[in-house]
Amino acid sequence: MHTPDVLDTRILSVGTALPGAPVGTAELARRFGMDALWEQWVDAFIGTRSRHLAVDVATGRQTATLADLATEAGRRALDRAHVEPHEIDLLVMGTSTPDQLMPATVNVVADRLGINDVSSYQLQSGCSGAVQALDVARQMLLTGRHRTALVLGGDVVARFYDMTADLSALPPEQLVNYVLFGDGAGAVVLTTEPAPGTTTLRAVRTRLVGLGREPGALLEWRGPVDRNPGRAPAAEDYKAIEKHVPLMAAQMLDETLDEAGWTREDLHHLLPPQLSGRMTERIVAHLDVPTAAEVSCVDETGNNGNALVFFQLERALEKLGPRERAVGIAIESSKWIKSGFALERD
Amino acid sequence: MHTPDVLDTRILSVGTALPGAPVGTAELARRFGMDALWEQWVDAFIGTRSRHLAVDVATGRQTATLADLATEAGRRALDRAHVEPHEIDLLVMGTSTPDQLMPATVNVVADRLGINDVSSYQLQSGCSGAVQALDVARQMLLTGRHRTALVLGGDVVARFYDMTADLSALPPEQLVNYVLFGDGAGAVVLTTEPAPGTTTLRAVRTRLVGLGREPGALLEWRGPVDRNPGRAPAAEDYKAIEKHVPLMAAQMLDETLDEAGWTREDLHHLLPPQLSGRMTERIVAHLDVPTAAEVSCVDETGNNGNALVFFQLERALEKLGPRERAVGIAIESSKWIKSGFALERD
Repeated sequence: MHTPDVLDTRILSVGTALPGAPVGTAELARRFGMDALWEQWVDAFIGTRSRHLAVDVATGRQTATLADLATEAGRRALDRAHVEPHEIDLLVMGTSTPDQLMPATVNVVADRLGINDVSSYQLQSGCSGAVQALDVARQMLLTGRHRTALVLGGDVVARFYDMTADLSALPPEQLVNYVLFGDGAGAVVLTTEPAPGTTTLRAVRTRLVGLGREPGALLEWRGPVDRNPGRAPAAEDYKAIEKHVPLMAAQMLDETLDEAGWTREDLHHLLPPQLSGRMTERIVAHLDVPTAAEVSCVDETGNNGNALVFFQLERALEKLGPRERAVGIAIESSKWIKSGFALERD
Repeated sequence: MHTPDVLDTRILSVGTALPGAPVGTAELARRFGMDALWEQWVDAFIGTRSRHLAVDVATGRQTATLADLATEAGRRALDRAHVEPHEIDLLVMGTSTPDQLMPATVNVVADRLGINDVSSYQLQSGCSGAVQALDVARQMLLTGRHRTALVLGGDVVARFYDMTADLSALPPEQLVNYVLFGDGAGAVVLTTEPAPGTTTLRAVRTRLVGLGREPGALLEWRGPVDRNPGRAPAAEDYKAIEKHVPLMAAQMLDETLDEAGWTREDLHHLLPPQLSGRMTERIVAHLDVPTAAEVSCVDETGNNGNALVFFQLERALEKLGPRERAVGIAIESSKWIKSGFALERD
């Protein structure tokens, strides 16, 4: 029987995974022959101090796939929730950088975790992807067809990292990608089973608002026969991003509060968008929720795309006290998607 | 208020799009310097007479993107349903070959169709992708949060088609890809609004059953820095596919009938998996529903992946009489997903 009015989706656990040791800006600078001035520029204008890369900076060797990281994160989440693989009946994953086009990485992860005979879905998604995955899983749980979902998200940008590149020859907008982005994965166990004392995912909202607007970010893949070899593999319009993201984040904060029936004053914690350390600071100032404690990670993890929200959730769940409330916001600049979610602990 | 027990999802319309004219096997044979014996082999063992390609066979020029085809299919579906873009509040698309990694193609299609301020999701999926997209859309409609969805699916394999290749030098398992696959897109308008006289999507079921099994199909993408250049871009294990797909299709037929509460005798039409003309014949024989009329397309359209089910749906809706029932089955061999859906006309 479907009884969504009495169903709630609860977060039983969060797991995350990062490849290798943090790569500091000084290490990147040395590797690419950049000077101290560049390091100071990164610190002042990007504000991301370190990132984790699934590629060895010294040798260029790839050290982990997305399936590797997502399996590790998923196993941690299952272990922490004391949930067995056979208890999972729904898998949803978000990523912009799947290991292959087929099979979907989520299905490789399922095999490695021992999960089988379930519904599984992988979203092709950018920085709102973790929220989209939570949204799809939550809606599918709310119809009553599924009981316990493993929600995954992550990105590995190794194929876009040329460790032989002469960074001093790159245009600034491509150079900045090397300090902005990182690799990682995260996972959440989400259930409609009773679980007193846990945190409820109260509302999730995602909105595509790209009508008539140029993409703010592009990521190209190549086939063996590429008819457009001149395309830049990754491109960002940072001016458009700086202009639109704080505004979209503020809109989505209002929309998510509306959906949860809360006001700004109800918030104890805020999980803001994580483009870079500096951008997050500016967005938080714009959101103007002075009573809420910020939960961020990007200055340490780098922008690892579909994994970011899971790192924030992991930190938030440690901080949320009884009956405390939080809202998280993620913005995807590719074709402009704003997304938000509301958390409330018992 | 959420009232899923009284909600039903109805198919208001189907739209499809194919690039260019059908490319017959004789034309492919001429282009690649293959002889009449090869043509006879294709006819006897593959049974796919034509396919539509988003690449000009003579020049190798790409003639359409996935966004082009999905926009055309989506517009046809909206027109046929007399639904305006602003009435769509949910977009779900399935594809294995997105135009880019970011933005997701579904969001480009939304822009072109004038659809905005909606939830949008793109699944990275193989031959079960259309059913996965219908499933996600239907579940999200059943919670009552959305009312009218545009569900899209399609594939464009142009980047994998090397028109300069010497086919006679290719190993047989790669050669067969050139006759098996095609390009195309499809769309369905799905709603929970009352629509007497239409066809109801009664049940949708998708199951990942890949535990401990090697993938039967692989499709690789490349980044600008590819650390595994020796990988075959596309690989299929046709022996495993021939062995497992008929069995999985029969299992899923039983599961879908169970979910709908029907028996084989209730079926007036059957939409079987569409790997190739010959494989479909063998699967239909194995499914053993002699009273149901087969609705297939692959011998004319080629295997266009995430589009196939929409072509079958388009044909099925023309054939379904009052109170007639149908079941559709799709099998994804990449990491072994079986999927099915049940249709019933008022």
